Amino acid sequence: MSAETIIERCRELSAFSETPDGLRRTFLSPPMREVHRLLNHWMQEAGMTVWTDAAGNLHGLYPAEGQTPRRLLLGSHIDTVSRAGAFDGVLGVVLAIALVESLAGRRLPFAIEVAAFSDQEGVRFGVPYIGSRALAGTLDAALLARRDAAGISVEEAIRGFGLDPAALPAARLPSGVFAYLEFHIEQGPVLESLGLPLGVVTAIAGQSRLTVTFRGQANHAGTTPMPLRRDALVAAARWISLVERYARATPRLAATVGTLDIRPGASDMVPGEVHASLDVRHPDDAVRRRSVAVLVDDARRMALRCSVRAEWQLHGEETATACDPCLVAYLASAVAAAGYPVHRMTSGAGHDAMILASRVPSAMLFVRSPGGICHHPDETVHSVDVEAALATGAALLGFLERRRE
Amino acid sequence: MSAETIIERCRELSAFSETPDGLRRTFLSPPMREVHRLLNHWMQEAGMTVWTDAAGNLHGLYPAEGQTPRRLLLGSHIDTVSRAGAFDGVLGVVLAIALVESLAGRRLPFAIEVAAFSDQEGVRFGVPYIGSRALAGTLDAALLARRDAAGISVEEAIRGFGLDPAALPAARLPSGVFAYLEFHIEQGPVLESLGLPLGVVTAIAGQSRLTVTFRGQANHAGTTPMPLRRDALVAAARWISLVERYARATPRLAATVGTLDIRPGASDMVPGEVHASLDVRHPDDAVRRRSVAVLVDDARRMALRCSVRAEWQLHGEETATACDPCLVAYLASAVAAAGYPVHRMTSGAGHDAMILASRVPSAMLFVRSPGGICHHPDETVHSVDVEAALATGAALLGFLERRRE
Repeated sequence: MSAETIIERCRELSAFSETPDGLRRTFLSPPMREVHRLLNHWMQEAGMTVWTDAAGNLHGLYPAEGQTPRRLLLGSHIDTVSRAGAFDGVLGVVLAIALVESLAGRRLPFAIEVAAFSDQEGVRFGVPYIGSRALAGTLDAALLARRDAAGISVEEAIRGFGLDPAALPAARLPSGVFAYLEFHIEQGPVLESLGLPLGVVTAIAGQSRLTVTFRGQANHAGTTPMPLRRDALVAAARWISLVERYARATPRLAATVGTLDIRPGASDMVPGEVHASLDVRHPDDAVRRRSVAVLVDDARRMALRCSVRAEWQLHGEETATACDPCLVAYLASAVAAAGYPVHRMTSGAGHDAMILASRVPSAMLFVRSPGGICHHPDETVHSVDVEAALATGAALLGFLERRRE
Repeated sequence: MSAETIIERCRELSAFSETPDGLRRTFLSPPMREVHRLLNHWMQEAGMTVWTDAAGNLHGLYPAEGQTPRRLLLGSHIDTVSRAGAFDGVLGVVLAIALVESLAGRRLPFAIEVAAFSDQEGVRFGVPYIGSRALAGTLDAALLARRDAAGISVEEAIRGFGLDPAALPAARLPSGVFAYLEFHIEQGPVLESLGLPLGVVTAIAGQSRLTVTFRGQANHAGTTPMPLRRDALVAAARWISLVERYARATPRLAATVGTLDIRPGASDMVPGEVHASLDVRHPDDAVRRRSVAVLVDDARRMALRCSVRAEWQLHGEETATACDPCLVAYLASAVAAAGYPVHRMTSGAGHDAMILASRVPSAMLFVRSPGGICHHPDETVHSVDVEAALATGAALLGFLERRRE
């Protein structure tokens, strides 16, 4: 299958949306059914047996040559954010089907399963990875009881889609699965900045999410002379500069203040209170935790200088996930064998591979994101890069096949 | 009348509110009628003739000894902001009535008029000084046509209160008014920080209101390495530090960034666009304009360093208003004669005196604001400071009386 056809198929699937203007397709929403219908059709065309598990993940199985439990899992997600692009998630599924189709019926010494996950973005229930959690066996009762904005629980959504929550245990990964590989757009500008089509992911960064609060004194902007102010925004501003400087000086650290809640928040009032979000990511958990400690300490120092108080709250933490070194090595060799430069990189965003890595050796191949644009209608891919990913996939299948010989 | 009674009267008037929890009393709103009723009563007790002009200002006239057009105008406003305190504006009116009452019927060689302005805060129509503009003759057709949130125009509000907009020309200041004096709480922390009860206002600062916009590139916070970012908030933060530093280094300059609009404004997104408010005030218009030029240039410089673009827009400008030097000198002498230390200061907030100064020599006396708190339910005054203001007023009447002898 040509790269153009793969891109065309992704665009075709992007028509199935909950909203008429801009793509939005959340966990088991009605348009998900249309996506299943088309994927099912394409999977069958590629010679696969198709089923939907109790978490709404669509699976296609391309059998092995002879009787063997060994199975390679390929996959990605088919849900989207709001106002999404056509490639985030979906590309990985469509590419996997194309890879199976490229075998043209030839059997390998292992089966290939393609999984299209029902939820990775977490838009509907505020919790991501519902799909891959079912395969990892971590979709627990608390998560099933969670409700969306309309008051519908995950369990009710599953029933509403015609599925049976009691069958969830059967969705767990079979023991014969020896590796999980995910193709995904990079969602960032690194590959483009290096002029490279592909990136071999070695790890998914850990993440800390905090709120840092600066409390000063709200005052009239006209009547409060500068020396008598306790301006919470000035303290926050100085700290934001420090955050950026520290992150630039620390290799592979990403630290972001993405939003501020300023109170009272009027043009003629000295800000009395500022709540700043802080997002810190690094592939090494020790570096990330040390960075968080430095940055909250900086907040306190800056606050003190501005006669303001600072406090902080940790909202959540994700530890880093290493990809399987052996699978990463195979993938890197496959990139080279396909004739492309090998670039190893870490992923700053979370992926289904993070969930599956707890159960099975996992790896990811990133495809260049033109303009670094993702989660946006302008999100796109170059067909030459899709071609490179497909060739790499074929080379990897060859390596895995020969490994068994 | 004791200072305690003056404070009590202010608190009594604060019960008349549009909202049950927290004081809010806007231009010709129903509670304004109750305030008129009580003020009318107190003015008559003090020996004054009372009327309401076509802009809803309540006036009381205490006649002169003999026939003379000479008249001293005292006044302040009786409208409030939302969630207001009991003293901003109202104190000046109640104090003026108390001052007239302290004459106990004794006539001066000039009349005293007390004016309670119907609108200074501009809450209802988004334009301040509707009351004093009527006296200055600058309440024009455009302003009369302005509508509030309910779609009611200023003109309709005037009719609704039982007044006749056609009579507005009669609200203009009579030519015999030789001076306007306003007592007002300071609304800031300066007098308290100096341990002084009173401040003689020499000028009302001019003001520039701008929006400074920083445009970078919104990106995923996890997947965009620091060197590839064009973070609009980092640029804005560096600039906010500069604004504060510049204002501290420039005597009497107040420069405030009170609010930021950050887009997309999510904790996991690098900010792509930031709109910052900038409020700049100084008693010297040349210094203010030069400061604005420096600060927008700083924005451009900081933006450039962060690979971001900066632009700015001036929304409004008020030139500084000097109080009448002769009246200021009298007022300062009166403070001293009453036995208090004289402190000359500028007002960073706008006042009705600013509007009236275009027609008549004007001055203001500030009363210490405990904690610098204003436009807040906790706003208060010390009774000893009110006593000081009353004594100063009496001393000033004495000076003005002797000046004619």
